[in-house]
Amino acid sequence: MEPVAGISMTPVQGLPLFGPGMSVARALLDAIHRQGEGLGSEDVCVIAQKIVSKSEGRYARVQDVEASPEATRIAGETEREPQMIQLILDESSEILRATPAAIIARHRCGHVLANAGIDASNVEEGDEGAVLLWPQDPDASARAIREEIAELSGARPAVIIADSMGRAWRIGTTGAAIGCAGLTVLDDQRGRGKDLFGRTLQATVIAVADSIAATAALAMGEGAEGTPAALVRGAGRWVGPDDGPGAASVLRPVAEDMFR
Amino acid sequence: MEPVAGISMTPVQGLPLFGPGMSVARALLDAIHRQGEGLGSEDVCVIAQKIVSKSEGRYARVQDVEASPEATRIAGETEREPQMIQLILDESSEILRATPAAIIARHRCGHVLANAGIDASNVEEGDEGAVLLWPQDPDASARAIREEIAELSGARPAVIIADSMGRAWRIGTTGAAIGCAGLTVLDDQRGRGKDLFGRTLQATVIAVADSIAATAALAMGEGAEGTPAALVRGAGRWVGPDDGPGAASVLRPVAEDMFR
Repeated sequence: MEPVAGISMTPVQGLPLFGPGMSVARALLDAIHRQGEGLGSEDVCVIAQKIVSKSEGRYARVQDVEASPEATRIAGETEREPQMIQLILDESSEILRATPAAIIARHRCGHVLANAGIDASNVEEGDEGAVLLWPQDPDASARAIREEIAELSGARPAVIIADSMGRAWRIGTTGAAIGCAGLTVLDDQRGRGKDLFGRTLQATVIAVADSIAATAALAMGEGAEGTPAALVRGAGRWVGPDDGPGAASVLRPVAEDMFR
Repeated sequence: MEPVAGISMTPVQGLPLFGPGMSVARALLDAIHRQGEGLGSEDVCVIAQKIVSKSEGRYARVQDVEASPEATRIAGETEREPQMIQLILDESSEILRATPAAIIARHRCGHVLANAGIDASNVEEGDEGAVLLWPQDPDASARAIREEIAELSGARPAVIIADSMGRAWRIGTTGAAIGCAGLTVLDDQRGRGKDLFGRTLQATVIAVADSIAATAALAMGEGAEGTPAALVRGAGRWVGPDDGPGAASVLRPVAEDMFR
């Protein structure tokens, strides 16, 4: 296999504020063209979850939620609003930990993260009480955006939908892939290397999509100065015509989860 | 704050095979110069743990280890060699999980990972039974390499020592910072954003060093085709003259660990 020449991450400037029904693919292509760039079939587009959610109209109004007894009980234990807890429960298949410090949930898509991905910080001002949920099916969203980019431009770059996630034993968040199309999500190198002990000591499966999402999220930035997309070049060895199994393939099966 | 212009990761080609006493800083500078590049004080050098460990002579011979009763018991439960388990115990402050699938340990430096970072796959052929331990103090190693680079070149780039780590709920590994000097390891953006609920819903602390290590590790590659260092440009906003608290600052305190 040829050596990797290098990987670059360029934030995509000048994207509009997104709202329900707006095309992420079209806005992304327009912004990339205004930057004097083009998209190729070896590129990777990393797109922040928040603009995909907004384009899909995935808003919820906390005031409109009716809290169940379970939500009210967890709210008391975690010093949160019962209606916010109800939203987390509605978006989750399982609450792993709930303390005043953090609520760690398994999203119904399978990803484990704080507050089931519900975000109150990226909703426009004046919309008090509105929060943003994840896309209904982030892998399907990635495939749809990829398909629309291909229809509009003729190129089929890979698409990653990224969100920031915490880690069990490390402070701070890194970008991770919650939706993916056209990229090798896991590069399984087991068996290529030698092992001195007869069994696999180092199980080398590289989480390619998450690794790319991590630095892309850094290049994109957070908050007011952030841009919600980045163009990644130099990762073409992991890009292919098939959409592949998506970010869902990175999820450790619940039966193998040692840290529930 | 100005927008980030973009981040690039270039593998450093032509590094020698490392052995005890060899200077990582000097080899890195020589290789970068041969690539027609120079190092600046806004750059970040990401260096694979394995070459730092080799330069520090952190080899152990499994045959020379005497297994304790505890190691023998865990070896039975996990279907491993008792001497290998003893090495993991010697390098760890705590075993979090031990099953045939994986042994998750808290390294004595505080990082939680499989097999306490002990690596049998990156030792030269013919050295049967030799394994490679982490540097004695990876943050101290990063500071020493940074200091030597500064003495040799006059520039003070940041240094990250990276290793691949698994994640609790996601398959595959990503690069993470185990040693660091001169880089903002955690970019604490709490309070900069708005929060609609009176309390911090999204605790935005960005794990900068780990995010950079993730894609750098991807650019570096694994196994035979890998290069054990990468030059990162475009992350200068997080590089400063002080060495800072190092990768140890990313460790979640044991008292706050919800997943022991």
